[in-house]
Amino acid sequence: MSQLNPHSVVPLYHQLKEILKENIESGTWTPGDRIPSEHQLRSTYGVSRNTVIKALDDLVREGLLYRQQGKGTFVAQPKIEQSLTGFYSFSRILKAKGLHPVDHVLDLSLTVVRHSMMKHLKMKTPGEAWVLKRLRCSGEEPIILETSYLPKKKIPRLDREKLKHQSLYDFLESEHGITVTRAKEIFEPVLIGEYESKLLQVSAGYPALLLDRIAYDSKGGPVEFCRSVVRGDRCRFFTELF
Amino acid sequence: MSQLNPHSVVPLYHQLKEILKENIESGTWTPGDRIPSEHQLRSTYGVSRNTVIKALDDLVREGLLYRQQGKGTFVAQPKIEQSLTGFYSFSRILKAKGLHPVDHVLDLSLTVVRHSMMKHLKMKTPGEAWVLKRLRCSGEEPIILETSYLPKKKIPRLDREKLKHQSLYDFLESEHGITVTRAKEIFEPVLIGEYESKLLQVSAGYPALLLDRIAYDSKGGPVEFCRSVVRGDRCRFFTELF
Repeated sequence: MSQLNPHSVVPLYHQLKEILKENIESGTWTPGDRIPSEHQLRSTYGVSRNTVIKALDDLVREGLLYRQQGKGTFVAQPKIEQSLTGFYSFSRILKAKGLHPVDHVLDLSLTVVRHSMMKHLKMKTPGEAWVLKRLRCSGEEPIILETSYLPKKKIPRLDREKLKHQSLYDFLESEHGITVTRAKEIFEPVLIGEYESKLLQVSAGYPALLLDRIAYDSKGGPVEFCRSVVRGDRCRFFTELF
Repeated sequence: MSQLNPHSVVPLYHQLKEILKENIESGTWTPGDRIPSEHQLRSTYGVSRNTVIKALDDLVREGLLYRQQGKGTFVAQPKIEQSLTGFYSFSRILKAKGLHPVDHVLDLSLTVVRHSMMKHLKMKTPGEAWVLKRLRCSGEEPIILETSYLPKKKIPRLDREKLKHQSLYDFLESEHGITVTRAKEIFEPVLIGEYESKLLQVSAGYPALLLDRIAYDSKGGPVEFCRSVVRGDRCRFFTELF
């Protein structure tokens, strides 16, 4: 068993966190397992209550553990993994894992787009765009808050009802003959804000990924700018570099 | 000028945040500009002090603004962008931007690797690996805290002095004839912990990216497992999907 080194420059709570993480990553503990109590961890590693709580708090915020009041601390389900090596569909990723994708349309309206959005959508003059705000869930669990902007000139109509059951890109293809063939994505870590907190049902201050996507049709024209807030405690991303 | 909508389901602080962000993204405000004072923002948008502070706090944590005591709030330098479409070198990215890359070797020692690390490095039995911990800076400013694990069997020596001036992969190539040709990366948003906070000189609780990389040589064998904590207020990543 790994022991903590009180003489290291790495603080004890961080060493303990790495050991607990290792137990999860190596499969020693599996999803749903109850981990040892705070009291047990204190005596196993000879550390203070504060040290144990700090390590556990970090792992809860990172989505590796979760607490159930009065019952203890448990190993969370593995995060949903999205590959960045090619186009991905959130619905398809969930289905492939045996999960049930559900999309809630929170808003579908028209707006006049502002300066930077005009640039993203390559509009020469201010013009109308659809704002499509969706909460994308795995069953009952909200995972991504997604806001798409689509130029009305290219996409004269969007159908709220159809978008409940059909992917946006499938809709663009079948209704408007627009095929999305390429996208640019920019992502950066942010914190869940108060607003996202309510919709994503996760505490404000938890880690999230802010993901901006510009999607292009087969002629190379932008058809969508999409800004997503992705729960960091439930998702991670991977890619291959050559 | 954009106005706030008190009847929207989107809270005022979030609307204000989006407007301020838009001013930065559109180039209306440029890096180094002092933005209007809290007092001015309150009267321009007709919101409470609390609303203004909440919007500004979010943007400071996300690295778009910074505060100087007694002087005001300013637009930050743009984030360092890393492409995930191919191999990237932190030093080269900085140099291309006219910035000065500096690496501090915090630790170079041997350790016996644990279970999950054995799996990453495809070691059949527990064995020794180098732990190379580096703080990667842009000039004086720390950006990434990077911990590499390299199997000693493949890499019998590492030279602390040389790694101050030479990239790790250049060193592996010139000293050991090992060429890194491929890597897998997994990333997820996390929070800056107390430990990273001191080294990266950014407050605990700020957003960060946790990046795990496994690098492979030309024969497909893993030569490095690297775990990095990247400052989210200073870096963002982009990719293209086809």
